[in-house]
Amino acid sequence: MSKEKIVIALGGNALQTAGMPPTAECQLEVVKKTCEYIAKIVENDYQIALVHGNGPQVGRILLAFETAKDVTPPMPFDVCGAMSQGYIGYHLQQGMHQALMKINRDISVLTVVTQMVVDKNDPGFNNPTKPIGPFYSEEEAKKIAEEKNYVMKEDAGRGWRRVVASPIPQKIVEIDTIKSLWGSAIVVSSGGGGIPVIENEDGTYEGIEAVIDKDYAAELLAEQVEADKLLILTEVEKVSLNYNKPDQVDLDKLTVAEAERYIAENHFAPGSMLPKVKAAVKFAKSGEGKTAVITSLYKAIEALEGKTGTHITA
Amino acid sequence: MSKEKIVIALGGNALQTAGMPPTAECQLEVVKKTCEYIAKIVENDYQIALVHGNGPQVGRILLAFETAKDVTPPMPFDVCGAMSQGYIGYHLQQGMHQALMKINRDISVLTVVTQMVVDKNDPGFNNPTKPIGPFYSEEEAKKIAEEKNYVMKEDAGRGWRRVVASPIPQKIVEIDTIKSLWGSAIVVSSGGGGIPVIENEDGTYEGIEAVIDKDYAAELLAEQVEADKLLILTEVEKVSLNYNKPDQVDLDKLTVAEAERYIAENHFAPGSMLPKVKAAVKFAKSGEGKTAVITSLYKAIEALEGKTGTHITA
Repeated sequence: MSKEKIVIALGGNALQTAGMPPTAECQLEVVKKTCEYIAKIVENDYQIALVHGNGPQVGRILLAFETAKDVTPPMPFDVCGAMSQGYIGYHLQQGMHQALMKINRDISVLTVVTQMVVDKNDPGFNNPTKPIGPFYSEEEAKKIAEEKNYVMKEDAGRGWRRVVASPIPQKIVEIDTIKSLWGSAIVVSSGGGGIPVIENEDGTYEGIEAVIDKDYAAELLAEQVEADKLLILTEVEKVSLNYNKPDQVDLDKLTVAEAERYIAENHFAPGSMLPKVKAAVKFAKSGEGKTAVITSLYKAIEALEGKTGTHITA
Repeated sequence: MSKEKIVIALGGNALQTAGMPPTAECQLEVVKKTCEYIAKIVENDYQIALVHGNGPQVGRILLAFETAKDVTPPMPFDVCGAMSQGYIGYHLQQGMHQALMKINRDISVLTVVTQMVVDKNDPGFNNPTKPIGPFYSEEEAKKIAEEKNYVMKEDAGRGWRRVVASPIPQKIVEIDTIKSLWGSAIVVSSGGGGIPVIENEDGTYEGIEAVIDKDYAAELLAEQVEADKLLILTEVEKVSLNYNKPDQVDLDKLTVAEAERYIAENHFAPGSMLPKVKAAVKFAKSGEGKTAVITSLYKAIEALEGKTGTHITA
């Protein structure tokens, strides 16, 4: 039997630990531990590719350049995304190499700087919702909004922040090469959902300021490489109804119809479990036998064996 | 006849123009023009791979994080290098795609985050010479030297800067995959000479603070992919003796023996033409028929046709 192909989406907790300082040194430590769990998946003879988030990292790159704007020019958001792919990809390369050595597997690990095409008419652009970069006072925020034509919103009592659109990913620019590498290397791609670009009428690409959901990006990649499973790793072992309430119910299996009903009933938090379940549903719908699994990093193997996690199928 | 394989090393002027603001927007503009010249090489049926420098870019990333250190932790040098590979690689991907479209070539362009192994006993570590990051006053510099165990040196009357080693690149960690992509994609790799790492005794890699010369990195890549030519693009059309003096002599052809004699006679400026000529000599020595060409971006095609540039052969 040929190896099962799995695209793995790594959540923020796979890269950084809450409460630890957000230094590169701490990140590398967390990444190395994460990679030991990922290597177990490889040891169990699955073929994998990795997609990771970049929220905190791209935020800090933006913040550093914004803070240093009197000595060096601020960098646009697409460039900060590209930088975060280099940063996180490099750490995953080191971490995976070390973890694979421990299990005597000689497999190349490669990070591909990935551009993700979004539709310039995506409805998300009419209602930007994703906060990025530093906090400002109301007065500063209004000044910035006027000067730079940014949309600024008040963020849960913590101050004002810029918000950008979160459009749906449509096309992975580097997909052909990523496909050609499948099986010969573990490819880290579409980091942070990919660098957001639009495709101009002449076919050229142009960076834009937007945040792409990494679970949607991983889903698109999984479809395009014809993966058998989309494995979304997050902080919880299973998706729940009534999460964190006395009547919480953990879900083992979900059909697309059930998942869509729960989505409609607002069971899943936007910006947290909702995009994961939506990405899972899209993948389950994409072809016969396609399964999306949502679980924690630590339970990944058991979940792939069907013993835990939430499994979404058509 | 099969296509000639060429590894191209892009100098700083291929990415940024002196006198223009060091913004990402200006860089993209310069990169797009550069890529039109590179695309002409592709149009002339050469197979290419790209290596670029990152001095100014990695310097600004360091500077931004250093300046913002009270709000977000500074990033170590290896991580800044990884970020610069994402940044510059992304721009080269966009620029090359646009330039290739104009000549109706549908070729994938891919940036690979590249680690470069150096010898931890490299003599360079005993005498760090490469200035990196911001300038400091003598007092600040001495404090930093003591606190962080950095080597700080006075830099040509402009202030004090940290200096790091410039060890010789020994091994491209991602070489197997870069090789496997040759011919199916234009690969951007070893940016800024590669992210400097050492190989520990257990075979794991570890980032270090060092600057790797991008011409040496391109040379190593050219050897390993068995390129026919190493093309080093810089600001001048030819290598010269007595450069910028009344008796300047431009060189058309150089044997390894001649080049080595001129090196010994100190004809080439360290940190400028010297590493290019040294890299060229190493490549010319690496096998029969191997040629290194040093010329400007604008003369690249003519130089490949043998009409200009400096050609170094065994």
